[in-house]
Amino acid sequence: MPTIKYYLRENLLPPGKLTSPNQASYGEAHVRRLRLIRALVDLAQVPVARVKEVLEGLDSDTMSLHDQIGRAHRAITPQRQLTSTTDAQEAAAAQVQALIESRGWSIHPDAPALTTLVETIAALRTLNQDHLAGFLDSYADAVEKFTELEVAAVTSRPDHTTPDQIAESVIIGTILGETLISSLRLLAQESISAKRWSAASTDTPPH
Amino acid sequence: MPTIKYYLRENLLPPGKLTSPNQASYGEAHVRRLRLIRALVDLAQVPVARVKEVLEGLDSDTMSLHDQIGRAHRAITPQRQLTSTTDAQEAAAAQVQALIESRGWSIHPDAPALTTLVETIAALRTLNQDHLAGFLDSYADAVEKFTELEVAAVTSRPDHTTPDQIAESVIIGTILGETLISSLRLLAQESISAKRWSAASTDTPPH
Repeated sequence: MPTIKYYLRENLLPPGKLTSPNQASYGEAHVRRLRLIRALVDLAQVPVARVKEVLEGLDSDTMSLHDQIGRAHRAITPQRQLTSTTDAQEAAAAQVQALIESRGWSIHPDAPALTTLVETIAALRTLNQDHLAGFLDSYADAVEKFTELEVAAVTSRPDHTTPDQIAESVIIGTILGETLISSLRLLAQESISAKRWSAASTDTPPH
Repeated sequence: MPTIKYYLRENLLPPGKLTSPNQASYGEAHVRRLRLIRALVDLAQVPVARVKEVLEGLDSDTMSLHDQIGRAHRAITPQRQLTSTTDAQEAAAAQVQALIESRGWSIHPDAPALTTLVETIAALRTLNQDHLAGFLDSYADAVEKFTELEVAAVTSRPDHTTPDQIAESVIIGTILGETLISSLRLLAQESISAKRWSAASTDTPPH
């Protein structure tokens, strides 16, 4: 398959063991790694360069799990630069800062999700949807509970006890957890919407 | 700005009112529409063709809000075709079907999020992370509560009472809600991770 050659060339997969000048054999570890790459690229739509960073983290003996998680976060967060600072962005940044302080979160000032959150709240304000931004604290409550559940899940397996196994679970849980939650949210929305809003929009929906 | 011309050419923005052969004037509605397009394209990274579908839904007098939400969902869900069916996918599809039935959700069989959820659970199984898939029901509980909160948020504004205003809130909430939740989740994770896992990974993390 051409993609395997591509992953070998990009050093995402280690080379196989040469069994003849033209043939290499690939073991169980290769198959596992290939499956992981496919899930990250095809399903979570992580760019190949970011997949490489995540795998380097997993393969490192010295990188902390916290730093590996940072790489996983970068892999699923588009990089944004705040090019200009509008009033809406300043107000949003202040609101996010207050949220972080009130929850006692420790967040690196360069965390890419921080920029995304500020930009999203600023966009909601600009689009005259301030009331959505006003629910930020209840949203954060719900998300925090959810995240604790996720941490419980990734550390729940009694036969996953080595740092390598835990790291793999945490990184997969971080990245695929995003597609899991996103799709669950859309299904839950669809079901609520079917009950409330499937009549033509010329009728005023209940509220 | 060249992007405005592009949006005009793609019929995302209606043409302005000609004030001279070479000049058009754009009103408040244009500015609002342009802000919405920018938020969807730049922030939520919705492809332009999908933005067009969402806007057509918002501008339609006959499309139900439920169908408009369907367009918003397609805008933020990569289209996947299940090309082959592996054992892991079959098991995942059965698990998702059981979840939907047990929760009494009404979901269209072609909902794109359905395929994403099945593929994600199948990938978790293939990656030897079945224990994460085992938390599906608790995840769904948390997400359902969250979604009810979102519905309360989009319908909370007393001065948003016309179908058009509600539709705009719901659609923006659906799409930008995704980036809001995703970034809150990553921030909550980072904070938990900083406390648990910032030591080098050669130490066994607590579990």
